[in-house]
Amino acid sequence: QLNSTTSDPATLDTADSAESLLAESTVSCSPEIITDEFRAFQIYDCYLVVASDAGLEIIDQHALHERIMYEHLRTKILAGVVESQRLLIPETIECTAVQAAAVLEHSELMTQIGFDIQEFGGTTLLLHSFPVLIPRGSIVRIVLDFAEKLIQKDGRLSRRDLLDHMLHTMSCRAAIKSGQRLALEEMRELLRQRHLVQDSHHCPHGRPTALTLSRHTLDQQFGRLG
Amino acid sequence: QLNSTTSDPATLDTADSAESLLAESTVSCSPEIITDEFRAFQIYDCYLVVASDAGLEIIDQHALHERIMYEHLRTKILAGVVESQRLLIPETIECTAVQAAAVLEHSELMTQIGFDIQEFGGTTLLLHSFPVLIPRGSIVRIVLDFAEKLIQKDGRLSRRDLLDHMLHTMSCRAAIKSGQRLALEEMRELLRQRHLVQDSHHCPHGRPTALTLSRHTLDQQFGRLG
Repeated sequence: QLNSTTSDPATLDTADSAESLLAESTVSCSPEIITDEFRAFQIYDCYLVVASDAGLEIIDQHALHERIMYEHLRTKILAGVVESQRLLIPETIECTAVQAAAVLEHSELMTQIGFDIQEFGGTTLLLHSFPVLIPRGSIVRIVLDFAEKLIQKDGRLSRRDLLDHMLHTMSCRAAIKSGQRLALEEMRELLRQRHLVQDSHHCPHGRPTALTLSRHTLDQQFGRLG
Repeated sequence: QLNSTTSDPATLDTADSAESLLAESTVSCSPEIITDEFRAFQIYDCYLVVASDAGLEIIDQHALHERIMYEHLRTKILAGVVESQRLLIPETIECTAVQAAAVLEHSELMTQIGFDIQEFGGTTLLLHSFPVLIPRGSIVRIVLDFAEKLIQKDGRLSRRDLLDHMLHTMSCRAAIKSGQRLALEEMRELLRQRHLVQDSHHCPHGRPTALTLSRHTLDQQFGRLG
């Protein structure tokens, strides 16, 4: 659930560190160093297998990234600092008249989460800007998802819950997908960001992001404990 | 249990391939190649974590190596081809008079498993040769274990079961220990030998050698299946 206070110092601290981390866009390290320090690999282009202090962890790459994106967006929205990317040439979004009306009616909510969408007429919307955290290719799909959510839930959801739903949608669409092969540097970066978010054990939908096999569990499974 | 037929073609085939494999004593490969092709790492200096066709496997390094040693020794004994290392200067083994008597009484059994042990007098035995597969440092401990087993079980165990007990002891003592840090090349070699032994899922004592998490299991755990 969204926390509506913006002055929570812990939240703001997280925002700061997350921001400084994201600024380091490239991590360069030789394979030798990774082999030594960073014991992790990807399986099924879906899960990361990692040796950590907690034991052996298997991480759902999409669920974890979704949680990271969610926390990151949420922190920025609470702090009122969502960075938007302004388009030189606005993009048109084709939708139904009902969808267009729903989006325009909530234009203030859209602005708060980093979208500047204006009326173009009838079944077309004009996208002027979108949050920098969201990949350009996902934008139209996200706006249409929002429109559907607004139509379905409007009047039955508080503004805060609507915002939370939108955050979920954005996080899910913007996160690394299952089936995406990750480079070692990407795995490393994802795992590093993990420690910066609260509640990283579950994705925003409640699915676990990681399965941990502690030494005790392993020793038990292998009959090493008596 | 020991299989007393020596003409089993499957057993002999295994012996052949195992032998040719052991001949490749060094495996050279650069870390880059390992990182790409060979997705495995060690945790707690005890378990190997491996991506395989079966899924994610966690392997007890000692239990697996014990099973490999056991199968290897067993195959060689059945084929009557245990290679012995002859010592230029025989090693003395101090034990009790009862232990010495028990070992000497079963000298033919000892020969069959690769040991040449002679009487030296009283509480001392003379070791002339030992199986090449066994690390030199484990020999005295293994002979004393044998002596104890022979004293405890003699008359109550068949020759075949005695031999099997001895194989277990040798395999356990000769195998990589838990707590031993493995180089990537050693991990690679251990995992390669794994596919050459029958029944590699359990150590000779019945403990599992591997825990497998299939894609289906993982997808279930992560709520990816409906």
